[in-house]
Amino acid sequence: MNANTKFTADAAHVDAAAIQSLPNSRKVYVEGSRPDIRVPMREISQADTPDGMGAEKNPPIYVYDCSGVYTDPSVKIDIRSGLPSVRDGWIAERNDTEVLETLTSAYGQQRLHDPELAEMRFNLRRAPRRAKAGMNVTQMHYARKGIITPEMEYIAIRENQRHENMSPMMLRQHAGENFGSSMPKQITPEFVRDEVAAGRAVITANINHPEVEPMIIGRNFLVKINANIGNSALGSSIQEEVEKMTWSIRWGGDTVMDLSTGKHIHETREWIIRNSPVPIGTVPIYQALEKVNGKAEDLTWEIFRDTLIEQAEQGVDYFTIHAGVLLRYVPMTANRLTGIVSRGGSIMAKWCLAHHKENFLYTHFEEICQIMKAYDVTFSLGDGLRPGSIYDANDEAQLGELKTLGELTEIAWKHDVQVMIEGPGHVPMQMIKENMDLQLKWCHGAPFYTLGPLTMDIAPGYDHITSAIGAAMIGWFGTAMLCYVTPKEHLGLPNKDDVKEGIITYKIAAHAADLAKGHPGAQIRDNALSKARFEFRWDDQFNLGLDPDRAKSFHDETLPKESAKVAHFCSMCGPHFCSMKISQDVRDFAAKEGVDEQTALDKGMTAKAIEFVNQGSQLYRKT
Amino acid sequence: MNANTKFTADAAHVDAAAIQSLPNSRKVYVEGSRPDIRVPMREISQADTPDGMGAEKNPPIYVYDCSGVYTDPSVKIDIRSGLPSVRDGWIAERNDTEVLETLTSAYGQQRLHDPELAEMRFNLRRAPRRAKAGMNVTQMHYARKGIITPEMEYIAIRENQRHENMSPMMLRQHAGENFGSSMPKQITPEFVRDEVAAGRAVITANINHPEVEPMIIGRNFLVKINANIGNSALGSSIQEEVEKMTWSIRWGGDTVMDLSTGKHIHETREWIIRNSPVPIGTVPIYQALEKVNGKAEDLTWEIFRDTLIEQAEQGVDYFTIHAGVLLRYVPMTANRLTGIVSRGGSIMAKWCLAHHKENFLYTHFEEICQIMKAYDVTFSLGDGLRPGSIYDANDEAQLGELKTLGELTEIAWKHDVQVMIEGPGHVPMQMIKENMDLQLKWCHGAPFYTLGPLTMDIAPGYDHITSAIGAAMIGWFGTAMLCYVTPKEHLGLPNKDDVKEGIITYKIAAHAADLAKGHPGAQIRDNALSKARFEFRWDDQFNLGLDPDRAKSFHDETLPKESAKVAHFCSMCGPHFCSMKISQDVRDFAAKEGVDEQTALDKGMTAKAIEFVNQGSQLYRKT
Repeated sequence: MNANTKFTADAAHVDAAAIQSLPNSRKVYVEGSRPDIRVPMREISQADTPDGMGAEKNPPIYVYDCSGVYTDPSVKIDIRSGLPSVRDGWIAERNDTEVLETLTSAYGQQRLHDPELAEMRFNLRRAPRRAKAGMNVTQMHYARKGIITPEMEYIAIRENQRHENMSPMMLRQHAGENFGSSMPKQITPEFVRDEVAAGRAVITANINHPEVEPMIIGRNFLVKINANIGNSALGSSIQEEVEKMTWSIRWGGDTVMDLSTGKHIHETREWIIRNSPVPIGTVPIYQALEKVNGKAEDLTWEIFRDTLIEQAEQGVDYFTIHAGVLLRYVPMTANRLTGIVSRGGSIMAKWCLAHHKENFLYTHFEEICQIMKAYDVTFSLGDGLRPGSIYDANDEAQLGELKTLGELTEIAWKHDVQVMIEGPGHVPMQMIKENMDLQLKWCHGAPFYTLGPLTMDIAPGYDHITSAIGAAMIGWFGTAMLCYVTPKEHLGLPNKDDVKEGIITYKIAAHAADLAKGHPGAQIRDNALSKARFEFRWDDQFNLGLDPDRAKSFHDETLPKESAKVAHFCSMCGPHFCSMKISQDVRDFAAKEGVDEQTALDKGMTAKAIEFVNQGSQLYRKT
Repeated sequence: MNANTKFTADAAHVDAAAIQSLPNSRKVYVEGSRPDIRVPMREISQADTPDGMGAEKNPPIYVYDCSGVYTDPSVKIDIRSGLPSVRDGWIAERNDTEVLETLTSAYGQQRLHDPELAEMRFNLRRAPRRAKAGMNVTQMHYARKGIITPEMEYIAIRENQRHENMSPMMLRQHAGENFGSSMPKQITPEFVRDEVAAGRAVITANINHPEVEPMIIGRNFLVKINANIGNSALGSSIQEEVEKMTWSIRWGGDTVMDLSTGKHIHETREWIIRNSPVPIGTVPIYQALEKVNGKAEDLTWEIFRDTLIEQAEQGVDYFTIHAGVLLRYVPMTANRLTGIVSRGGSIMAKWCLAHHKENFLYTHFEEICQIMKAYDVTFSLGDGLRPGSIYDANDEAQLGELKTLGELTEIAWKHDVQVMIEGPGHVPMQMIKENMDLQLKWCHGAPFYTLGPLTMDIAPGYDHITSAIGAAMIGWFGTAMLCYVTPKEHLGLPNKDDVKEGIITYKIAAHAADLAKGHPGAQIRDNALSKARFEFRWDDQFNLGLDPDRAKSFHDETLPKESAKVAHFCSMCGPHFCSMKISQDVRDFAAKEGVDEQTALDKGMTAKAIEFVNQGSQLYRKT
C-alpha cells in the first residue's frame, strides 16, 4: 500500500505478523494487589539439559514485554475498535477528571465534522477527559503527595526481572557501575513513587490514553528505547504507520513517536494511539507548521496552543517541545558545519529570526505547563540545537540550550509536570560522558532521552550501528531512554525491515547499558542463553535471543535439518572438531577427578593421564 | 560453488566485484624516498558546492586503502599468477636471507609431490626464503639496530591522512583522549621504527609474503581490523575463500586470518597468500590437528613444528599460538558457565589433561621463537581461555593466561620477535577497561588484538553489533587491532554478505576509536562527508561513506531518480519542509546581517524582522 491508496476504516486490519507469539513463548500476567493490576510478561520455556550433561530442568525465563495483547491469543484484536483499556478504572476512581462533552480544540472539531474524513476516521466511542478545574492529574503530583497509584505498582512489578526456580549460577551477576546513583536491589512501588516525585523518572501516561500499559523512564530503571514512525509528504499511509507501531512493539519498542508530517496527521495519530499499548510521543510543532502551510514565520502561539490541546485530548503521552531554542543561541549556529539539523529547532529558529522575538514556546512555557498537567502529558524538552556532525559536537549552541532546558525543568516541576530532556546527536566517544554529566548537573537529574549519539559521520547506511555504540555508552552513563536510529538515517524513510533492525539494535544498546549499570536481574537472560549455547540447546538459544527468527534462519542456512537443532555441534567447526565439545570433556574430567591447581602441579601426572586416555573420547559421559 | 564442486587452478578466477573501482574513486600512489616505495591510497573526488551556497571547490579526499591492485585498472589481475611483489627487492637487498632449494617442511614436500593435488595446486614459480644461519630478519630486529626499512617508510606515508588544499574548517578536529600514550602529530619513519623497536607496534610481513603492502599494528597508529575467513569440514571451496579475501580487503579489512579446518588447508592458504596484499594470519594448531585426524592427544611438538615451518615458508605473516593455556589454568575453567570456547585453547587443554604435561607450546616456546625470527612471522599470542559468556568475563583463568602471555612476550622480545596479544571475548561494558589496563601492564605495551568484545550474550544474529560496541570502546582504550565478528557468529559460517557486514561494522568501531583517540587527520573524512550532507551533494555523501553502494541504494528506494541526487531535500521530510534548508536560511541571515548575541538581545528587533520577512523564502541566495 502506498500513500496514494486511499485508507478507509473499513479496510483497516491488523498486521498478521504482529499477532503471532514468538517461538516457545507464552504471554503471562502477574497480578498486583488488586485484580485489575495485571502485568504482562513473556514466558520463554526451555528444554531440559541433555542427559549426558546432567539432565537438569531449565526453568522458564521471563522477559519484559512491550507487545501488548497482540501476542495474547486469548484476546481478539480488531484495530477498528482499538485496544482494551488498562487504566480506565484507575483514572475514573481518582475522581479528579471530568469527561468533556466534546473536543476542546477548534482544529479537532473541524476534523471531526469534515465529511471528507468520515471514511478514514477512527470511531472513538468515548469523549476525552480533562482535569477538573484546579486539579493536577500528573503522576508526579500524586507521587509528591505520597500516593502510590496503580500505575506505580504496575511498574514496580514490571521492572523486576522475574526469576523463579533459578539456580544460584543463573542468578549470579557481575557488579555494575551506576555513576553517581545507587541501583536498588528490588524495585518497589515506593521506590517508583519516590523516583517520580524527585523528577528522576517519568511515567508517560496521558489520561486520554487509558490503553497504555504503564512503564517508566528513569536512570534507576531498565533503559528504554523509542521507535520513530510517521509518514511524510512523500510516502506511507495510515495502515502502514499502524503496522510500524505494532511491529515496533513486537520487537521491544518501549515508546513510539509519531513524527508524521504528511496529510492526515490528526487521523493517523488517532489510529496509532487507540491501538498502542505503549506511550506515544509527538512533536506538536510539526503539525502546527502544517496548519500554516509550512511557513514557519506564520506560526502563532494560538495555533500551537490549539494543537497541544488537540493532541492532549487524543491521548499523546509526551510532547517534544523546543522551548530552549532561544533567539540568542541562533547566531551561534552560523559557524557550524551542519547548522541546525533538528526540524523543530530549525522551525523555531526561523520563527525567532523572522519576528526577532523570543521563541514563543519559551515565553508561553507556564501556559504550556497548565495544559500538560490537565492531561498528564510529559515534557520531552527538545534539543533543537543538537549537533548534526562530529564537528559541531558539544558546541556553545548545544550546551547553551541544554542549560536553558534545565531552567525550564524547574518551572515544569513547580507545576508537578513531568519532564525528560532530549540529547544529541553526533558526538565522538571521548565527548559522550561530558554530555551526560552536564545534563545531570544542569537538568537536576531529569531523565535524559538521547538520539544515539552517533559516534561518527562516515557510515551512511549503518547509522544504527554508529549510534548504537554511543547509545550503549550514554545509557551506561545514565541516559534513561534511547531513541533508535535506523539504517536509513540520513538517507530515507525507514520501512518495516529498517524499523526492526533499528529496534533490535537499540535493545542491544539498552541491554548493554543495563548489564553495565548492574540492573538487578539483567544478566539472567544472558546466563540462560549462554547455558543453552553450551549445552547445544539450539532452539533455546534462538528463543532466548532478541530475534529468534533471525537466529534460527542464520543457523538453518548451513544446517537446515531439524536434527541439527539437537546436534552437539554447529556448522562453524563441523561434527569432529568443536571447542564446546572438547571443553565439556575437560570440564567433566576436571570436575570429576578433582584436578585442581595443586594436583596438577605437584602430583606425578602419569596416573591421571592414563586414566584420561583410557576414557578415550567418550564425550558427555553420564555423571 | 560449494564444497563438493572440485576446485581446479585452471578454473580459478578473480571475483568481478573485487576489481571495480568504488564510485568517483581513483587509485593513486604516493612515492617515498625511492621509486619502489609506492604507497596506495584511494582518492575520492567531490563535486563543487552548489552556486547558492558559495560555489566552493571541494578538494579530493584521500583514504587508507587495503584493496591492493585489485582496484587499480592499470593492473591486469590473474589470480593464477598471484599479485605482483612489492617487497622482493627490499628483502633481497638486505642480504640476510637465502633462497632455499625446496620446502623445508616434510608435510609441505608431501603435498608438493601428491599427484592428486596437481590440478588444484597454485603454481608458485619461486622457492621460499629463510634467514641465513645466525641472522634475524624481523622488522623488530632492524628497528632495534636503528635501521629504517623501506617497509617502515612505506607505513609512515600510509598512516598519515593526506590532506591537500583543505580549508581550516575541514582540518579542524576535536581533542582526543589517548590513555597513557601520546599521539604524534605526524607519523614519521623514525616514529614507526621506534614503536616497533619498543614492541608497541608490529609490522606483520613474512619474508615469504613479498606481495604484502606493509602495514602496522600499534596503539599509536590507525586502529586496524581483521577479517576471519576459512572453510570447515561442512562447506566452502578454495575459490570461495579467495573471493572472501578479496571481498574483505575491498571493504577495508587490514588483515585476514585463514581459519580453515576442512580439507586442503595447505592449498587453500597458498592461493590466499599469493593473492593477498594484506597480511595473512593463521592458527597453526588447527592444521596440526587435522594431521592427527582430530585427536588432540595425538599432537606432538614435532608435528606442530613442521606445521609452523610449512606455513612460514608459504608466507603466513602471523601465527596465533596458544602457549598461555597452562595445565594449572585448565581446572579453573571447570566452574565456568561456558568452559573453553577457543578452539585452540580447548585443543591444548585436552592435550594437557590427556598427557598431564605442560602445554608443549609453552615448553618449546624458545624454539618457536627461532622459527619466527627466521621468516619474520609475528606472534599473536592466543587467548585460549577467553570468556565465552558474560558470566565468565575477567575470571581467574582468563587473567591467569594473560599474565603468562606477558611473560612469553618478554621471551619473544629477547629474540627480537614481534608480538601481539589476543584478547576476549564476551565482556560487559563496565569490565572492558580493566582488560585493556591489565594487558598494557602485564604485556609491557605489546599491541592488543581483541575479538569484540561482545558486550552481551542475548543477541545471536546481531553479534557484529553487540561486539562493535565493545570493540569501539576497547579500541579507544588502546587496542591496536579488532578482529571482526559477523552476524553469523555462534550460528554458522559467514557468507560474503556477512563478511561485508562484519567488515563495515568493524571499520565503524575502528574509526570511532580513531576519532576518540584523536588520531591526527581522522576527522577529515567526517568533516568532508558532513559538509557534503549539508550542501545536499548526495553522491559525495554516498561516496565518502564506508559503503557507497548501500548508501545510494537506500536513498534510491524512496527517490530513485537522478535528479534527486542534486535535490535540495530528501525523502524524510519532503521538498517543502527540511531542516537543512531552513538551517541554511538561518545561517545566511545570521552571517550576513551580523546577528550576534548582543544585537539579538539588545536591539529593537523590528527592523531586522521586517528585513528578513521581506527577503521571503528565497533560499540559497547568491552571496
